[in-house]
Amino acid sequence: MTDTISRAASDLHVYDTTLRDGAQQEGLNLSVVDKLAIARHLDELGVGFIEGGWPGANPKDTEFFQRAQHELVLQNATLAAFGATRRAGSKAADDPLVRALLASGAPVVTLVAKSHVRHVEEALRTTREENLAMIRDTVGFLHGEGRRVFLDAEHFFDGYAADRAYALEAVRVAAEAGAEVVALCDTNGGMLPPQVQDVVADVLASTSARLGIHCHNDTGCAVANSLAAVEAGASHVQGTVNGYGERTGNADILTVVSNLQLKSGHEVVAPERLRDATRVAHAISEVTNVPPYSRQPYVGSSAFAHKAGLHASALKVDPNLYQHTDPSAVGNGMRTLVSDMAGRASIHLKAGEIGVDLTGVPNSDELVASVLAEVKDLEMRGYTFDAADASFELLLRNALSGSTLTYFDVESWRVITDARGGEVAVSEATVKLVASDRRFVATGEGNGPVNALDHALRQALAEVYPEIDKLELIDFRVRILDASHGTDAVTRVLIETSDGETSWNTLGVAANIVEASWRALVDGITFGLLRHQVPVR
Amino acid sequence: MTDTISRAASDLHVYDTTLRDGAQQEGLNLSVVDKLAIARHLDELGVGFIEGGWPGANPKDTEFFQRAQHELVLQNATLAAFGATRRAGSKAADDPLVRALLASGAPVVTLVAKSHVRHVEEALRTTREENLAMIRDTVGFLHGEGRRVFLDAEHFFDGYAADRAYALEAVRVAAEAGAEVVALCDTNGGMLPPQVQDVVADVLASTSARLGIHCHNDTGCAVANSLAAVEAGASHVQGTVNGYGERTGNADILTVVSNLQLKSGHEVVAPERLRDATRVAHAISEVTNVPPYSRQPYVGSSAFAHKAGLHASALKVDPNLYQHTDPSAVGNGMRTLVSDMAGRASIHLKAGEIGVDLTGVPNSDELVASVLAEVKDLEMRGYTFDAADASFELLLRNALSGSTLTYFDVESWRVITDARGGEVAVSEATVKLVASDRRFVATGEGNGPVNALDHALRQALAEVYPEIDKLELIDFRVRILDASHGTDAVTRVLIETSDGETSWNTLGVAANIVEASWRALVDGITFGLLRHQVPVR
Repeated sequence: MTDTISRAASDLHVYDTTLRDGAQQEGLNLSVVDKLAIARHLDELGVGFIEGGWPGANPKDTEFFQRAQHELVLQNATLAAFGATRRAGSKAADDPLVRALLASGAPVVTLVAKSHVRHVEEALRTTREENLAMIRDTVGFLHGEGRRVFLDAEHFFDGYAADRAYALEAVRVAAEAGAEVVALCDTNGGMLPPQVQDVVADVLASTSARLGIHCHNDTGCAVANSLAAVEAGASHVQGTVNGYGERTGNADILTVVSNLQLKSGHEVVAPERLRDATRVAHAISEVTNVPPYSRQPYVGSSAFAHKAGLHASALKVDPNLYQHTDPSAVGNGMRTLVSDMAGRASIHLKAGEIGVDLTGVPNSDELVASVLAEVKDLEMRGYTFDAADASFELLLRNALSGSTLTYFDVESWRVITDARGGEVAVSEATVKLVASDRRFVATGEGNGPVNALDHALRQALAEVYPEIDKLELIDFRVRILDASHGTDAVTRVLIETSDGETSWNTLGVAANIVEASWRALVDGITFGLLRHQVPVR
Repeated sequence: MTDTISRAASDLHVYDTTLRDGAQQEGLNLSVVDKLAIARHLDELGVGFIEGGWPGANPKDTEFFQRAQHELVLQNATLAAFGATRRAGSKAADDPLVRALLASGAPVVTLVAKSHVRHVEEALRTTREENLAMIRDTVGFLHGEGRRVFLDAEHFFDGYAADRAYALEAVRVAAEAGAEVVALCDTNGGMLPPQVQDVVADVLASTSARLGIHCHNDTGCAVANSLAAVEAGASHVQGTVNGYGERTGNADILTVVSNLQLKSGHEVVAPERLRDATRVAHAISEVTNVPPYSRQPYVGSSAFAHKAGLHASALKVDPNLYQHTDPSAVGNGMRTLVSDMAGRASIHLKAGEIGVDLTGVPNSDELVASVLAEVKDLEMRGYTFDAADASFELLLRNALSGSTLTYFDVESWRVITDARGGEVAVSEATVKLVASDRRFVATGEGNGPVNALDHALRQALAEVYPEIDKLELIDFRVRILDASHGTDAVTRVLIETSDGETSWNTLGVAANIVEASWRALVDGITFGLLRHQVPVR
């Protein structure tokens, strides 16, 4: 281990910029309340620094820092305010934006500065010397006012390639003026790990600065680039939760921290806090309203999901042969997917996951064999249980109890969709069913046949099962199977239903798309009532 | 540059395993027709090898290879069949699964083999010696039968850590028996780039094998690990389109190839084929019905989208200051500041593709500007003309002629779908329209609303336009956009219509799935009549 690495490992900053750079993501828009909620989650995760925004430049961010002083009690993290070096030709002490950084009350100020000659001359339109003076003056002023100052050297890697001497000089000037950390930014995201490692090593050898790293994922290497910088001696890592950010996003701080901690032996957050990673990822995604990415490393819902039957049988021998780390270390769990590749072993594993221990059940071998046969038969006909856990659970519970769980008996349903001339089409559904020995006939309208059926079904059931009010259809996916037969093909519909706290997936398969949707809808409602332990009335 | 790197660069294999390992992804289920369609797209992208599946182990894959022999004409790629080494204690020549690999007709066979002692002893339950014999015998047999043999050394990196000597021996045995490439697999996906680089370099120095690399994304480093292996001397890279695969997915072959070609100076595919990358990524996602990931490197819809006001104004100075590569190199485009010129150029280009030369048209500038505005408006609302050339052509021709081409005027349409008890649902549609100044009312039945509408529409038009008999609806795809709104979401329907010789794609977008289907259906029929130069009667 070299001297630089031990220097880095001693005290590695985890610096989160979800609230500032992450919020640049397309379609992501955070209110002050959202920002406060996210900051609390980040603090629970144990990050060292939370960059809250740009006070002075953005009224929402000014308000965030004002409210944070009274409403945000942080256990672990220190708040950082982001801003720019003073304007060309002025003084930092007189610059209103620099004064706004002081006024924010944040103990850390992170200044963005240019280190790329072409950006200085063509975008900032000033001289190389003035840009260095802006860095020196602004860092020095804020440092003198008692703030910890970090510097983001924007476009550093491209700037280093364009003019190494100037890029190094910008780092030196910042460090000499009192910047505690200089974060080298791959702003355009075009770097690969070997370049990052070489440049960080050179800057470390050529300056006295403590270095940080800020990566974007344009080459799919944001995480690897961040790790390469740490390997080379950087001791401050920036990133965003769930990799939010402009274009392809920033380095996902959850993946970076998990790798550093579980793979490279750095203790960057307390182990019990890392076990919050999956919860925090999903909680923040609820705030941002960006759907969670199932394939996200470590914390994604598929990150420890196993499909191949080949693996499932061996998973029973020793799960560690088939997973790269213990999922509980990041608060995630192993999942077994039931599919036509699955064998008996995966039925057992899956049953265990949903809390059904088959080992004590009489005739358990026969039962498992018959469930497996039913799954294979249904999958041949287009079902896919790996995407519909709840439909599988209903199937398994029905097999165990020897009867089909039904909260209501459907007599008939009908949907009419019509349009006159160029007008918007309207759908109207009628459902006739018997629940609790009473017959209900209900009609619902909707902007599509499934929407109309959903409304009619709820209305028909509302009196006997008021619990249905909690359930909401939140996702609806249609897949045409064997599409070469055109409209004669089989249709598979996947529906996700939520009770506000959790959600589950059900599916329906039929030649008729409306029938497939209806089946998925009925399964979704049935599973929801079952999960809430509603008795059959 | 070391000797190993120049050895690698000379002839780098790009080996795609979307159809086999990619299909392990949760919720991804490919029919034989889907697999054939994806293979064609992969061939257009210029990959060297396409792994089609596991013939013999999976009936669908057996059928794929059978049909591929007659239906799949590949310009660039070679087909590979995947399978395992023979069973313990038997002979390769007698093993039915090994014989199925021969019978598949694929010129390349890729064998998966164990190289990790614990997997040999605890999962395979055989001896270390027998495992090596299985490799030697199976590779030797297939090689002797004239097949090119590649070997996937499963769990190689974990195996190397557990028992380096045994892992190396497995590679040596394979190479000596005739394996052309030994791909080192990070099956559990837990590696980081420096480990991959060190191990690949050691294996290369310790054996005579040509090495490949197969990575999973569990640490978020699948792309960087693949590049590290190439850097160390591997000359065969495996991956999947869009990074499909089990858990967090495989290395995204599009990102890997783009990086190798645009960043590292390898020419792995022809540059004009790389410009197909964005189209291929989206076309394959239409087949798999896995929504495209907007933040995907290089080909994602956000990959070159700029939001920050800071950047947007500076982008005008020089886009290259703010983007890491030219998006046109991968067939993508910069967004937010799509210059009028760039947009107009693509309308000209698309018009040219369908045989309309706009340069001689009066007011062509105005016309192109208005078509561009209409396309942008419709794409904002969920249309996607990339996948529906015929709908675009109708739009363009209507703009050129200054009126909307209509073979018939629809008065109204209606579909009723109903089911009694557990019976199969039936759909019945009624269409009322005017053609050739006569009013027609026709009713059609079908096994779904679209099928019924299709039947009713044909019946209504048959007398005035008997040419409609030739047209057949051959594909029907549904995509729910903005799925987070559940059944309230917007639906996009793509329909492919054939006249027996050629086929064309049309689309419809509406809140109501039946209305979206109806619009696509009407466009499909209209375009078919236009293509056959049927006059409006």
